[in-house]
Amino acid sequence: MYVILVYDMDKRRVVKMLKLCRQYVNWIQNSVFEGEITEVKLKELLASAKLIMDEETDSLIIFKSRQESWLEKVVIGKEKNELDNLI
Amino acid sequence: MYVILVYDMDKRRVVKMLKLCRQYVNWIQNSVFEGEITEVKLKELLASAKLIMDEETDSLIIFKSRQESWLEKVVIGKEKNELDNLI
Repeated sequence: MYVILVYDMDKRRVVKMLKLCRQYVNWIQNSVFEGEITEVKLKELLASAKLIMDEETDSLIIFKSRQESWLEKVVIGKEKNELDNLI
Repeated sequence: MYVILVYDMDKRRVVKMLKLCRQYVNWIQNSVFEGEITEVKLKELLASAKLIMDEETDSLIIFKSRQESWLEKVVIGKEKNELDNLI
């Protein structure tokens, strides 16, 4: 499965969340990630994310697509993930 | 066509960008939008966005999906778009 993940977190928790998400998917912009992930790994990621988040104020949204090819990506301006792609 | 739009802008330009995007798609989180849009309207949006952006430092990413049903959305924590949906 292919996912796009976006979060909006309090500054105090954002670094933890960034580190967590980067273990599973590719960082492509400020608080936006994308990547291929299994259902099991996604569950693991979401369980860990819930431990970091304050669900009253923070927000995490995942868009799941069965295939990457069903999504076409257009980037305007600066691409932030050059390094991330190389790792 | 269904799109997810995310941007990362300098603070000085972010309000202008927010106002622009809200004219075309639904605001669902901090700098994240989604919605049904025609190819023509998307071109119009992107042309206007480019006038606001500094393409050296700002970033705008659009994920296009032919059908909304090809995307499954999962929200954890706070949903920010309650008002937006009512308008």
